[in-house]
Amino acid sequence: MAQVVALGVDIGGTGTKGALVDRSGRIHERARSDTDPRAGTRSILTLVAELLGRAEALGAEVAAVGVGAAGFIDAASGRVTFSPNLEYDDPDIRRAVEAKAQLPAVVDNDANAAVWGERAFGAATGADDVAMVTLGTGVGSGFVVDGRLLHGSTGAGAELGHMVVDPDGPACACGLRGCLEQLAGGRAIARMGREEATLEDDAMTALAGSVDAITARHVSLAANDGDDAALRVLARAGRALAVGLSNVVNIFDPDVIVLGGSVIQAGDPYLRPARERLAEMTAAQRRRPQRVELTALGKDAGILGAAALALGAVP
Amino acid sequence: MAQVVALGVDIGGTGTKGALVDRSGRIHERARSDTDPRAGTRSILTLVAELLGRAEALGAEVAAVGVGAAGFIDAASGRVTFSPNLEYDDPDIRRAVEAKAQLPAVVDNDANAAVWGERAFGAATGADDVAMVTLGTGVGSGFVVDGRLLHGSTGAGAELGHMVVDPDGPACACGLRGCLEQLAGGRAIARMGREEATLEDDAMTALAGSVDAITARHVSLAANDGDDAALRVLARAGRALAVGLSNVVNIFDPDVIVLGGSVIQAGDPYLRPARERLAEMTAAQRRRPQRVELTALGKDAGILGAAALALGAVP
Repeated sequence: MAQVVALGVDIGGTGTKGALVDRSGRIHERARSDTDPRAGTRSILTLVAELLGRAEALGAEVAAVGVGAAGFIDAASGRVTFSPNLEYDDPDIRRAVEAKAQLPAVVDNDANAAVWGERAFGAATGADDVAMVTLGTGVGSGFVVDGRLLHGSTGAGAELGHMVVDPDGPACACGLRGCLEQLAGGRAIARMGREEATLEDDAMTALAGSVDAITARHVSLAANDGDDAALRVLARAGRALAVGLSNVVNIFDPDVIVLGGSVIQAGDPYLRPARERLAEMTAAQRRRPQRVELTALGKDAGILGAAALALGAVP
Repeated sequence: MAQVVALGVDIGGTGTKGALVDRSGRIHERARSDTDPRAGTRSILTLVAELLGRAEALGAEVAAVGVGAAGFIDAASGRVTFSPNLEYDDPDIRRAVEAKAQLPAVVDNDANAAVWGERAFGAATGADDVAMVTLGTGVGSGFVVDGRLLHGSTGAGAELGHMVVDPDGPACACGLRGCLEQLAGGRAIARMGREEATLEDDAMTALAGSVDAITARHVSLAANDGDDAALRVLARAGRALAVGLSNVVNIFDPDVIVLGGSVIQAGDPYLRPARERLAEMTAAQRRRPQRVELTALGKDAGILGAAALALGAVP
C-alpha cells in the first residue's frame, strides 16, 4: 500500500515552505519558495502543486493539505480576515487550495500551526494545555486549551505579543504602548542594544559597523562574547519575557510553555534571566514550578503542525 | 410530571448561597448561610440538604447538583487543589456532595460558574467566546473558549486579576507587583482614594470619617457627588481596567466581555473611562470595537451557572 502523507505548508512574509509529512511526523519531501508579498494565496498554491507532483513521483498518497498562514485566519472557514504584513490575492485560502489540490484542506494561523506541531510531534507531546511563544522580530503565540487550539471569535486572538505589560512603555507598531513584543522580542533587543551602545564604544557597535545597524543578532553575539552592555540588554529582555510568561501561567495554567523563534538562539544570556525571574514569580505566588521547554521542531514546527492539522481533519 | 430542577450552590469566603433552578434559568427556591471559614465543604453540604428538603416539599425532581467554589478546583475530579481564603474540611467536594445528595454533582471554580451562568441565562447568551471579569475587592475572571470553560492543566488558570500590567506597580498579596487587581479592583480604588485624600480635605474623608477608613464605596459615593479627587481615582482605575481588557481582547478575541462585581456599581465615573480607553486601544489596533456588557445576573450568576453546569452534565 502506498504511504499516506499530509501536505503541510507554512507561509510567512518572506518565505513559503512545505513538506510531505507522514503520521509519525517524518518529513519525506521539502519545498520552499519566496513569498510573493502581494499574492500570498498564489504562493501557497504554487508550493502545493509542486509537492503534489513530488508525491506522485514517490507513489505517496496525499490525504489532505494543511496550511499555516500569517495573519488573522477564521479557521472554521479557512479564510484570512486581516493580514497586516502580507497580502492574500484570494482571501478564501481553503477553497482555493481545495480546488487546486482536489483534496480536503485545513487553514489556520501560522502560530497556531506551530504550537499544534509541537504538541503533535515536538516539545509538548501528549500535553492538553500548551502555550507556545515565538520570539522573532516580534512576539507570536499559539495556545492549546484542553486539547484544542484557541482561535477566538474571529481568529484575532492568541496575540500575546500585544499584551500590554507596561502602559508607559515604548510605542508599538500595533498602535499600543508597552506591548510584550516591544520589551522582549528581537526588535526590542535591537532597540535596547542601540540605546546602550550610544553610551559607550562597545562590542555591539564593532560587530554591526555602526550604532544604527545593531540588530538582535549583534546583541546576542556580543553578549556571548561577554560584553557587559549586551548582557544587560538580554537580561532586561529576558526578565520582560518572564512577566509575559507569568501572565500566561496565571491565565492559562499550561502543562508546558514552549519557546521558539530566532531570539532563543541568544541562549543563556537571554533565557537564564527569563527562567530565573519566572521561577521567582511562580514561587512568590506559591504556584508549582512552570515547565518551560525550547522548541523541538525549530523552523519545521509550522509545516509539521499544518500537516498534523490536516491529518487530524481526515476521518 | 414533576418539574425537573438543578440545585446550584455558590460558596465564597463569607456566604454560601444556593437555589433550585429550572432549565429556563428560573429560580424557584433560595437558601443562604454564613460560610464556616474552616469547613467549606460542610457549609456546602448543609445548604444542599436544606434545598433537597425544600425540593421534596415542592414536589420538584432534582436532577443534579452544581457547585461553584472559591479556590483552585480540578473540575475533572471536583476536588479543591488550593484555596488561600477558605478552608475546605474535605477537599473532595464532588464525592462529598454526591454521597450526601445521592445525585450526580459537578464542581467548578466560582468565577467559572459565574461566566457559565451569564452564557446560559445572562449577558452572554449564545456566545461561544466569553470573558467575564468580576471587579470586587479583588479581580476575578472566567473564560469560555469555543463553548467550553477554560480550566488550565490544574485548575489554576483564569486568574486575570494576577496578570501583571505594571512590573513596578504596587505589591499584591499574591507575591507579585502591579497585578491588575492592584490597579483596577476595589482594594486598589480604596488605596488610591486614601492616597488622594491625604492631599486635601475632601469628600471621601468626610464620608468615611477618617482617611484610613476610606473604602471603594466611599470613593464611589464621593465621585457620584462630583468630588474631583474621587473622580480622578475612579478614572485611573477604569483606565487600568481598560489595559486589562485590551489584553483579554488580544489573547481571547471574545464575542463579549461581561463585567460584574460590586465595583461596577460606581457607574459612569469608573465605567466610562474604562470603555473609552478600551475603545481607543481597539481602534488604534484597527480591531473591531469590543462588545462589553454589564452582568445581567448580578449576585445570582454563580448559582445559576452552577445549576447550568449541573443540568449540562445530565444526559
